[in-house]
Amino acid sequence: MLRLFYAAGTCALASHIALEEAGAEYTAARLDFHSNEQRKPEYLAINPKGRVPALVTDRGILTETPAILVFIAQTFPDAHLAPLGDPFALAQVQAFNSYLCSTVHVAHAHRVRGYRWVDADDAAAILAMQKKVPQSVAECFDLIERELFAGPWVTGNGYTVCDPYLFTLARWMEADGVDPARFPKLHDHRRRMAERPAVKRALAQEEAAAA
Amino acid sequence: MLRLFYAAGTCALASHIALEEAGAEYTAARLDFHSNEQRKPEYLAINPKGRVPALVTDRGILTETPAILVFIAQTFPDAHLAPLGDPFALAQVQAFNSYLCSTVHVAHAHRVRGYRWVDADDAAAILAMQKKVPQSVAECFDLIERELFAGPWVTGNGYTVCDPYLFTLARWMEADGVDPARFPKLHDHRRRMAERPAVKRALAQEEAAAA
Repeated sequence: MLRLFYAAGTCALASHIALEEAGAEYTAARLDFHSNEQRKPEYLAINPKGRVPALVTDRGILTETPAILVFIAQTFPDAHLAPLGDPFALAQVQAFNSYLCSTVHVAHAHRVRGYRWVDADDAAAILAMQKKVPQSVAECFDLIERELFAGPWVTGNGYTVCDPYLFTLARWMEADGVDPARFPKLHDHRRRMAERPAVKRALAQEEAAAA
Repeated sequence: MLRLFYAAGTCALASHIALEEAGAEYTAARLDFHSNEQRKPEYLAINPKGRVPALVTDRGILTETPAILVFIAQTFPDAHLAPLGDPFALAQVQAFNSYLCSTVHVAHAHRVRGYRWVDADDAAAILAMQKKVPQSVAECFDLIERELFAGPWVTGNGYTVCDPYLFTLARWMEADGVDPARFPKLHDHRRRMAERPAVKRALAQEEAAAA
């Protein structure tokens, strides 16, 4: 059975939703980032990066959201979560997810995890990073709204693993100082995503675990 | 026929090598980053992100290295550049590439492209980022050396699209202030990669175009 390690409010929600969409049998294990559980030896033995998500499978442990999402799509083909038979269309899915992980998530991370890229005690540099986040994150979502989002789902008519990943990162907009109303297509996507039973189940599980 | 847009010294080299390893018919088009060719309207029409690589195919244009690499592997299956029939093994390939694009490349980028995450005229913050690069990049390669690199190739006995991608980013170590001798397995991998005919051809093409 699959076991997903996640933390509240993180990108692991994308994998959590995908497991629900796939109808997978799995358990979800919550890490408490406030007590730095992700840096404890027990978890570093699972994921030496000290991050989430991590997906424990019969064959071993997988990390990194884009990898886990395509793995879920391939493991549960009946759920049609990616265009598995079409290398070009699959590459479009992958390109979108790669942009989310390497550019959108990274822009966001400069608000709360600036210590990764400057000395943690350099308050001025940490603040300089935080100040830029509303602009850099907005530029990402502007590009997605204008160029990358086909609609009604990310890649067009078919729901794919791009959708829960976009939904997960788009939920951070307000905290990053970006007005979601600037991006009507993404705003509508987020609303429709929130209505999906799989999304409701994943969010309810994460909220129940936090309670 | 495929057409790869690249710039010298960038991560596009990974896709360039993969095309050579695959025996693909393709042309390579060099962008001059010094004259900001990647921000000109002609290129933004190809890749609105204004970045490389971009791969023009009969079906449309693909961006993002991890997506392009798996696309090349799937399009040229006889080259055996990824474990295409094994979703778990493929996910391991993807997880490695995802770590390179979202963490290793990003750590490196804070030396030369800090303006993405702070105001370009904040000289102190730009400098604070540059100062951290030797440490943050070294931590990435240390994790790869200790935990992620199976050897003799990234995922074990089989050469995959992880190998040209690792090779490409590992070539930046010296400029990032990281001593390659600290990572003997990666150092040896880089030496063996440099001897491969496909790698020599891709590098020779990029050097000839720059001359």
